[in-house]
Amino acid sequence: MEKILILKGNILFTKIPERLEVYQHHYLVVINGKVAGIYPVLPPKYENCPVEDYGDRLIIPGFVDLHLHAAQFPQCGMGMTKQLLQWLNDYTFDLEKQFQDENFAREVYQRFADQLIAHGTLRACIFASTSTKGTEVLFDVLKEKGIGAYVGKVNMDRNAPDFIIETTEDSIAGTEYLIEKYRHERLVKPIITPRFAPTSSRELLEQLGGLALKYHLPVQSHLSENRDEINWVRQLFPEARNYADVYHRYALFGQTPTVMAHGIYLDREEIDLVKRNGVILAHCPDSNLNVQSGIMPLRKYLNEGLTLGLGSDIAGGHKIALNEAVVRAVQLSKLFSLDHPEYQPLSVPEAFYLATKGGGALFGRTGSFEEGYAFDALVIEDDSLTAGRYCLADRLERFLYIGDDRNICARFVEGEKIGD
Amino acid sequence: MEKILILKGNILFTKIPERLEVYQHHYLVVINGKVAGIYPVLPPKYENCPVEDYGDRLIIPGFVDLHLHAAQFPQCGMGMTKQLLQWLNDYTFDLEKQFQDENFAREVYQRFADQLIAHGTLRACIFASTSTKGTEVLFDVLKEKGIGAYVGKVNMDRNAPDFIIETTEDSIAGTEYLIEKYRHERLVKPIITPRFAPTSSRELLEQLGGLALKYHLPVQSHLSENRDEINWVRQLFPEARNYADVYHRYALFGQTPTVMAHGIYLDREEIDLVKRNGVILAHCPDSNLNVQSGIMPLRKYLNEGLTLGLGSDIAGGHKIALNEAVVRAVQLSKLFSLDHPEYQPLSVPEAFYLATKGGGALFGRTGSFEEGYAFDALVIEDDSLTAGRYCLADRLERFLYIGDDRNICARFVEGEKIGD
Repeated sequence: MEKILILKGNILFTKIPERLEVYQHHYLVVINGKVAGIYPVLPPKYENCPVEDYGDRLIIPGFVDLHLHAAQFPQCGMGMTKQLLQWLNDYTFDLEKQFQDENFAREVYQRFADQLIAHGTLRACIFASTSTKGTEVLFDVLKEKGIGAYVGKVNMDRNAPDFIIETTEDSIAGTEYLIEKYRHERLVKPIITPRFAPTSSRELLEQLGGLALKYHLPVQSHLSENRDEINWVRQLFPEARNYADVYHRYALFGQTPTVMAHGIYLDREEIDLVKRNGVILAHCPDSNLNVQSGIMPLRKYLNEGLTLGLGSDIAGGHKIALNEAVVRAVQLSKLFSLDHPEYQPLSVPEAFYLATKGGGALFGRTGSFEEGYAFDALVIEDDSLTAGRYCLADRLERFLYIGDDRNICARFVEGEKIGD
Repeated sequence: MEKILILKGNILFTKIPERLEVYQHHYLVVINGKVAGIYPVLPPKYENCPVEDYGDRLIIPGFVDLHLHAAQFPQCGMGMTKQLLQWLNDYTFDLEKQFQDENFAREVYQRFADQLIAHGTLRACIFASTSTKGTEVLFDVLKEKGIGAYVGKVNMDRNAPDFIIETTEDSIAGTEYLIEKYRHERLVKPIITPRFAPTSSRELLEQLGGLALKYHLPVQSHLSENRDEINWVRQLFPEARNYADVYHRYALFGQTPTVMAHGIYLDREEIDLVKRNGVILAHCPDSNLNVQSGIMPLRKYLNEGLTLGLGSDIAGGHKIALNEAVVRAVQLSKLFSLDHPEYQPLSVPEAFYLATKGGGALFGRTGSFEEGYAFDALVIEDDSLTAGRYCLADRLERFLYIGDDRNICARFVEGEKIGD
C-alpha cells in the first residue's frame, strides 16, 4: 500500500549549489517517504488525499550535520579560551569517561537528541565516546527519537589518558558488537570511528579498516585540523606520505564512504587523494575559530571538485544549530577572500547546499526535494523574525541568519513527523 | 526617602578586564538605583527589607551596545552576501525612507526595543534614520520601554540617494528640535550623529560640532571601516591629515564624549588622536565579517590603552543579542592572533568587560556592580543549557556562548525592573 503525504507551502531547496529552487505556494507530494513531485496545482489522482496546508510558511530540507561529538554536548560553550590540550584534559576526557554510566549516558543523550532535532538537524554523523555501553545507549535514544544518524563508538588505544583508552582488542570487540547489533537498522547505523590517527595504533587502524570492508561500513575521523597535529602524525607514522595517507593505507579513506572532519591544511597530494577516493570533508567553521585552527580554504576545495558538507563539531563548535554553521561558513569565506581575492566568498545558497544536499551525500539521497529523495524536511514559521514583506529567498536567508528552533514548527524524517 | 532593593544570587561582573569578580550566593543592595554593596551576610540595617532571592541563578550587568541602527532592524540577516553599495541600495536606503511614516516607525521601533531588551541590552547607542519625525518616535518608544539609550537622528546632506538626504538646514533644524525636546531626559538622550564623513558636507560637520559643544552632547559616527571608504574620505577631504582628523577638525572627535564605530584601519597618528581625545571605539565583530571589512586589531588597541566597547551593528551585524558579539570578538581575536602571534587572543572576561563596563563608559557609571554604579542587571536562569555541575565562571561563559533571551529571567535598569 502506498503511503501518501501532501504538503502545501513555499518550497525551497538547492539542487545545485549556485541556485536556490523556489516554488511559491506549491504542493509537495511524498510517497512512502520519498519525494514524488512538486506541483503548482494538485494532480487529479491526488484529489482525494488530505493536504497539510502550511500557508505562507517555508518548507526546506532538514539539516545534515556531518561532524559532532555527542559525548561533548554537556561542555558546549565552556573552556573556549583554553588551549586544546588543556581543554581536553579539563573537560572532555573527564566527561567522556562518565559515559560508562548508562543512566548518565541516557540523560545526556536524550537532551542532546532533543536539541539536535529542535534545531532542525535530521541527519547527523556522530562520534559517541569510547564506551561501548554508552554508545549503545546513544543508538537506542536516537532510534526512539526518529532521527537519521551514523553513530560511531570512538576507538583509541594510545596517546590519551589511561582512564579512557582501551586495549586494541577491547576497542575492536566493542565496535564489532555494536556493528552486529545495529547494522540492519533503517535510520541509525554504525560507522567506523578511529578518533584520529595519533590516538590509534597501526593494529587498531588495520583492524578498523578490516571491519569497514567486511561489513561495508562508512568511516569517519579527523584530518589535518592544525599544524601541531600534522607534525605529530608525521612523527608517529613516518612511513606514510602524509596525514591522509595514514588512513588510506588502512582502508579508512574512501574504500568505503568516508567523511573527514576539518581537512584545513591539505597539501596537493592529499587534495588529489581526497578527490580520487571520493572522501567527503566536513567543514566546521565555528570550530575553526574556537580551537584556533584557522580557516579551511573552502572555495579552493569546491573549485577542485571535492564533496563538502558542514559540521557543528560540538563541542569544538559551540552551537548545535546548523544554520549557525551556514552563517559562519559564509562569514569565514568572506574573510578568507579578503586575504585571497582569487577565491570568491560563498553565497547563501551555496552554504545552504553544503548543510543539506552536500552533507546529505553520505546518507544516500537526502537534503533535496528532487524526485526520489527522502523527504527530510523542516517547516519554517518566520513571522516573528522582523516586520516587512520580503521575497522567499530573503526570508530563507533571514531564517538562517537570525532564526532559531522557535521558528521550526514541523520536522519530517523520511516522511514521518518527529520531534513534536 | 531611600528606595532599597535587595537581590540574592550568584553575582558576577568585571571591575577590570582581566578578572571576573565572583560572589556566590551573596546579597546585592541597591539604593536609589545605585549599587550600595555586596555582602555574604545581610547587614543588620537591611534586616527588615524584602529580598528578591534568585537562588542559584546568575546576576550580571546588562549589556551595553555601543553601535546599532534601529532603522535597519527589519533587514537583519538579509542581503548578507551583497556588496555594500548594492546592499545599501537594495535594502537600507529604501527602508530608511519609510520611517517618515510614523505608524511604520512605531511598529518597527517597538519590535526593535522589545528584542533589544529581551536579549539583555539595557543601554544602547543608536542611529535612527534621517527622519526627524521617525527619530522622535524612537525616543518615545524607548522611554516607554524603560531602556537607557543615546539616540541620534542621522545627518546626511550629500552622496546618498536624493530621497533620503536632507538640506544642511533641515538636517540641523531637525537635530536641534530633538535636542531641545529630549536633552533633559534621564535615560533616553540625544547624541550628535553624522552618518559618516563621506555623506556630510563641511558645513554640516561644522554645525553639528557646534551643536555638540553648545549643548555638551556626545557624538557618534563611523570611522575607518574599509579601505575604499578611507580612500573616498581622502578624496573628499584632502585638507585633513587622515580620516579621524576630518571629525577632529569639526569638534566631533572627543571634544565631547565620542564613540566611533569600527576603526579597523587606524594609522599611528589616528591611534594617538583616539587615545589623546578619549574617543571610545565600538568593535562590531559580526559586521567585520558580514560587510567583509576585515578584523579590527582589538588586542593592539587594548595594548595602546584605548577605550573599547562592543556593538551589534544591526544590520551590518545580524544578531541583536550582544552575547553573540562577545563570542565573535573572542573568535576573531583568536584568528587575528594566529596571523599575528604577538597579539594574545581575548579572554572571556575581557570580552565580557567590553560588553558591559567597557561600553558603559559612555553612559557614566554602568556595566559593573561596584559601589555607586547604576544597577543595570540581568538575572540568568541557565538550567536548560546543558546537564552537569560547573563553576560560576564556566556557567557565565556557557550562557554567553550558547544562551539566548530565554535564559534571561529578569532585567533591571537603574534598579527598576523592565521588560516583563
